[in-house]
Amino acid sequence: MSGGAKLIDGKAIAAEIRTEIKHDVESMKRIVPGLATVLVGERTDSSTYVRMKIKACKECSMNSIHRSLPDTASEEEVLQAVEELNRDESVHGILVQLPLPSHINEERILSSVSIEKDVDGFHVVNIGKLAMKGRTPLFVPCTPRGCVELLKRSGVQIAGKEVVVIGRSNIVGLPVSMLLIHENATVTIAHSRTADLPGVVRRADIVIAAVGRSEMVKGDWVKPGCIIIDVGINSKPDSSKKSGYRLVGDVDFEECRKIASMITPVPGGVGPMTIAMLLRNCVDAAMRKEREVNE
Amino acid sequence: MSGGAKLIDGKAIAAEIRTEIKHDVESMKRIVPGLATVLVGERTDSSTYVRMKIKACKECSMNSIHRSLPDTASEEEVLQAVEELNRDESVHGILVQLPLPSHINEERILSSVSIEKDVDGFHVVNIGKLAMKGRTPLFVPCTPRGCVELLKRSGVQIAGKEVVVIGRSNIVGLPVSMLLIHENATVTIAHSRTADLPGVVRRADIVIAAVGRSEMVKGDWVKPGCIIIDVGINSKPDSSKKSGYRLVGDVDFEECRKIASMITPVPGGVGPMTIAMLLRNCVDAAMRKEREVNE
Repeated sequence: MSGGAKLIDGKAIAAEIRTEIKHDVESMKRIVPGLATVLVGERTDSSTYVRMKIKACKECSMNSIHRSLPDTASEEEVLQAVEELNRDESVHGILVQLPLPSHINEERILSSVSIEKDVDGFHVVNIGKLAMKGRTPLFVPCTPRGCVELLKRSGVQIAGKEVVVIGRSNIVGLPVSMLLIHENATVTIAHSRTADLPGVVRRADIVIAAVGRSEMVKGDWVKPGCIIIDVGINSKPDSSKKSGYRLVGDVDFEECRKIASMITPVPGGVGPMTIAMLLRNCVDAAMRKEREVNE
Repeated sequence: MSGGAKLIDGKAIAAEIRTEIKHDVESMKRIVPGLATVLVGERTDSSTYVRMKIKACKECSMNSIHRSLPDTASEEEVLQAVEELNRDESVHGILVQLPLPSHINEERILSSVSIEKDVDGFHVVNIGKLAMKGRTPLFVPCTPRGCVELLKRSGVQIAGKEVVVIGRSNIVGLPVSMLLIHENATVTIAHSRTADLPGVVRRADIVIAAVGRSEMVKGDWVKPGCIIIDVGINSKPDSSKKSGYRLVGDVDFEECRKIASMITPVPGGVGPMTIAMLLRNCVDAAMRKEREVNE
């Protein structure tokens, strides 16, 4: 039996955005946008993410600059690396790959990134502007911006809709809620302490699942015809795979695709959008710089 | 027929808090907390608010400093007044009375207030920290903090409750939503673009009404036994009054008091809390200063 929901193809939409970005980059006359990545330590997953970002820059004709520090690096050394990149005029965006080793104060490092180069959008001033009506942050965090882009490019009207965001993280849940309020949705932020989570999720015209729990949202949690954006990326044991596991979202895809009208797959949904939005943020910053130079 | 809801007496709770503040002020050894007010122009309502704040300082044994500028003052002149107060060591909190005359950029003035003296809590860095998990803003905006204090001091358990906030202003709706999420409530932010506002409000265990529309929330909008915090202060024509009008909230008090279990009156509910929280914020700042001096 095949499910009724239309797939929201994040890979295809991200590819479309990357083509737009490449076009923008190649039309720039004075500046080649440059993204700097900072990696502290050698976590396998972090190294993979950084490599993907560097590769994506290349494909979009952007420069990339990489700083690698050992996991024994001191907070001062990481700060110094960030500050050099803050001063480097060929760098328009700085991405510090998280998580940092536990002896380093993440808040301190993130707020040392120049607000003009904060392509991750996590600087407190960017979050503050995002959390206010009528203020425009220089950068919107990548995954939340990716969720909204997926909806818009799939023709979903957000205004007036009931949205339930599951999860209240600084990286996804809270900023995506802010974005959707500004888009005139009626937003409910649900989380681990919500009394009747299935009942709350069932009210939603649009569900944004960002809790990090494998296949938590079941078919009978969602309203028929709703739209589901699944931000989760979790690994689940699967003996039929060579690796011994496969990736699943926060949503039970097989159950929910039968009930929803549109749904993102995992992988291939929100994932590819995060990098596309990171590049978009970086190129936006470089374009602002170019306009300043021209003035 | 008398209503069933218990009144949440904001005047009494605010008086209790002011007694605590006075006690804190008088126990301070080196510093007398000082609040500076800046008034631009001569709006009657603004002048009244500023006068009330100055009087409240006096009653709590605090200093107050007042700067009055004509409504013809330039943006630079207002900035200069704020910067003098930023440098003045006897000033621990600066309140710029809003609204400012239209020729002055409010955002620019508010962000010129030193973050250590931003007792209004509207500085973008304070809002950013409020909008993030695990960060502590130096100051929480007064009216939102007042709403939460009213609930807590009335013995209401917030965690796990369904809260509907009506209104998404920078001054009340958005920051109070953030605060209540941190208090582990499930929060829905509703507003003028919400499709079925009565239906949404009816889900709430706790309603925070902050839209600025006289008596909009009707008895059949609210769930029996819910708790209502009415932030609205609107004037309504009333020929039986000498002034020709009376103050009403955003909630139809007579209707809703029959349905709710607890409700704030207008006036005498949230109103008195806003000034109490402003003094609290200012004294908190002075106490931080005193601790620094002692270190």
